[in-house]
Amino acid sequence: MFQRILIANRGEIALRIIRACREMGIESVAVYSQADADSMHVRLADRALCVGTTRSSDSYLKIDQIIAAAEVAGVDAIHPGYGFLAENAQFNEMCRSSGFEFIGPSPTAMEKLGDKNTARSMAVAQNVPVVPGSDGLIADFERAAEVAREIGFPVLIKATAGGGGKGMRVAETEDVLVSQLEAARNEAIAAFGNGGVYLEKFVQQPRHIEVQVIADTHGNVCHLFERDCSVQRRHQKLVEEAPSPDLPQERREAICDAAVRMIKGADYAGAGTVEFIVDKDYNFYFIEVNARIQVEHPVSEMVTGVDLIQEQIRVAAGEKLSFQQSDLTCSGVAIECRINAEDPTKNFQPCPGKIQSMFAPGGLGVRFDSHVTTGYTVPPYYDSMIGKLIVHRPTREMAIATMLRALKELQIEGISTTVPFHEWILKDEAFLGGSIDTKYVDRAYKGQS
Amino acid sequence: MFQRILIANRGEIALRIIRACREMGIESVAVYSQADADSMHVRLADRALCVGTTRSSDSYLKIDQIIAAAEVAGVDAIHPGYGFLAENAQFNEMCRSSGFEFIGPSPTAMEKLGDKNTARSMAVAQNVPVVPGSDGLIADFERAAEVAREIGFPVLIKATAGGGGKGMRVAETEDVLVSQLEAARNEAIAAFGNGGVYLEKFVQQPRHIEVQVIADTHGNVCHLFERDCSVQRRHQKLVEEAPSPDLPQERREAICDAAVRMIKGADYAGAGTVEFIVDKDYNFYFIEVNARIQVEHPVSEMVTGVDLIQEQIRVAAGEKLSFQQSDLTCSGVAIECRINAEDPTKNFQPCPGKIQSMFAPGGLGVRFDSHVTTGYTVPPYYDSMIGKLIVHRPTREMAIATMLRALKELQIEGISTTVPFHEWILKDEAFLGGSIDTKYVDRAYKGQS
Repeated sequence: MFQRILIANRGEIALRIIRACREMGIESVAVYSQADADSMHVRLADRALCVGTTRSSDSYLKIDQIIAAAEVAGVDAIHPGYGFLAENAQFNEMCRSSGFEFIGPSPTAMEKLGDKNTARSMAVAQNVPVVPGSDGLIADFERAAEVAREIGFPVLIKATAGGGGKGMRVAETEDVLVSQLEAARNEAIAAFGNGGVYLEKFVQQPRHIEVQVIADTHGNVCHLFERDCSVQRRHQKLVEEAPSPDLPQERREAICDAAVRMIKGADYAGAGTVEFIVDKDYNFYFIEVNARIQVEHPVSEMVTGVDLIQEQIRVAAGEKLSFQQSDLTCSGVAIECRINAEDPTKNFQPCPGKIQSMFAPGGLGVRFDSHVTTGYTVPPYYDSMIGKLIVHRPTREMAIATMLRALKELQIEGISTTVPFHEWILKDEAFLGGSIDTKYVDRAYKGQS
Repeated sequence: MFQRILIANRGEIALRIIRACREMGIESVAVYSQADADSMHVRLADRALCVGTTRSSDSYLKIDQIIAAAEVAGVDAIHPGYGFLAENAQFNEMCRSSGFEFIGPSPTAMEKLGDKNTARSMAVAQNVPVVPGSDGLIADFERAAEVAREIGFPVLIKATAGGGGKGMRVAETEDVLVSQLEAARNEAIAAFGNGGVYLEKFVQQPRHIEVQVIADTHGNVCHLFERDCSVQRRHQKLVEEAPSPDLPQERREAICDAAVRMIKGADYAGAGTVEFIVDKDYNFYFIEVNARIQVEHPVSEMVTGVDLIQEQIRVAAGEKLSFQQSDLTCSGVAIECRINAEDPTKNFQPCPGKIQSMFAPGGLGVRFDSHVTTGYTVPPYYDSMIGKLIVHRPTREMAIATMLRALKELQIEGISTTVPFHEWILKDEAFLGGSIDTKYVDRAYKGQS
């Protein structure tokens, strides 16, 4: 087992990794920017090294500085957390070539899964459903019409160079196919200088359901059931829960099995998430693999009792998974609310600044993973998440009641947070009904609490 | 169901009851002393009423003030928490006669169980083992020798008026019986003016094991398994765990069954604890019933998932228990450390004062029930407990690792706490072995950490 691990991250995930290390008897080495010099991850790690000034590009993204810190501290391995360098195959490779185990999948697996086309082909090869589409660029209108008739309207026209919604159009019927195709092409040419477009089935009322998986280097792959992350605002997850509140058991098993097949086919070791889009008839389609630990991993920990970070570390050290699939059960319901330093009444505008006073919620079924406390100043340089409020109770109804109580109990003065948004969604009829789609918040939330 | 509950308590248990009320949609009314005006239970309750100045006798023990507050606030019921008036049958009676439900057993059951002799007779009637003894005062040396031979040496000689260890002697053999008997008698006459003594078997290497029970008014009684509270200093519990780390399954079932028999025989409704002393051969003997919720109830909540305070409230409102015995399982291991504002290097001297800064631990398997935060001043008037750190993990080894990490993570500056004691006991070989007795800490702990 490793003696010492460097944590190439900050905030709550750095603390989360320190916790796992400490429980395993492993020394933790933090890195930090000057802006984070007083942060809890610096105080609680066994050692901390400054790697730069303020902005991410000058600190947590500086590969050379981080590798140098690992050398200075004499660590055995590097845990990248999520975000920053977590899915950077070059960093992954550099860690390994510098003699440090990278706690995550191999650079090859990371690179393959990071490429959307390659990942899609891998899914198809493993008989994992993907969103039906043109499987390549559309040469002309005739081909588009042919494909659209085959997969059925409505269809989504997507620019191959697209992003941020640009070069994307929906054609509800064949009548508008040619006009929408031209509109997408023209927008893509204007924005990216590349008019290549392809077609996909447009999934109506999409749900986001993902499966937590973990694999060791001995060929064992287990899933830790699914998470429903359909509460999103502009593609940003805000609330996650396990299990999904509205998935028939047969579909649950099918989606978990598909995730395991995907990972087995990818020569993958470590923790990962296989993300799916699910339509109103519970058909699921592969989107992508997140080749790292995710923000929302705690809900899967709560329902299974497994410490995912400890398991990541064991697997990276070459050990076998400490459980088999048959050892795992999904018990009760867990929900996570992301507490961000943002003002939900002002379009979720970030609110960095000093926390004048704070009281962290406690009691039965409550877990609060956070690096902030009274007197802490939220710096403006990084993402605005300041904590994750997680509950775990025998039923969804109880979990929601506990979350509402814990949100009321969480006292943060000095900055605005997303607490009022969470209080709204947790009382919302559609959310309570358990079947909202990923666009619901964008349609329904107007800043009310 | 009740609309509004008054909480006749302070500190973490007041918060705990506010949490339960909020999750059930019940309004909570706090009472407070002037010394507690800025306390979290005042801030988090729906309403708060001042009932006195500083000392308990001038505030939380003032029955008239508390009943008046209940009338002013128009509550339906009163929850006494633990300590203060929780086992005061007169207060219990006054609540009821003033038209407020008392959340606890009837005054009659409370009174009967509060009397040691009556409780012992009730145990005998239910075939619950009691410590063998003279069953009444010893008239003379001949009778003492007769009883001692029957129950076997060593025997304990106890003054009927005794307390605090005064008027108590152990006779290891018959040789010293007469001298120890006279010593106990003389000490009792000097201290209490009453020389009456009785005999009991002296239980060697005693363990303290208690069973959490809850009963409704429809005749249903369930146990929530046992807690081991053998880590005590001068009869004060410091660490509690569930289940007991060293109790054969057959003994576990027998002790839980005995507790249920005891409660069934007492015409009891509400939560309660049946306390036992357990010898090195796992023979158990009834000590007493605590007719209230206890400090250490969270460990039983963690292993069963049951919210005991919510269940207390339901039962007091006349509802049936929300579960049957067969619904309950004991899952994993839970440990609680009492975090007291005391200096373990100075004989656990209380350390009231201002908390300059605090960071509450989080992460998987950690629950921190506390009413204190940065800037809070621990008043000198009440008990010194400032929080309960509770962990729940699949195994005892994991629970201990999580507790040690959480203790290290808990940062309290400005006052001394019992954290160093807990770090010592959790690494102690005898504790790790799982079979320490209630005198162990008094013998082995010298203030080291």
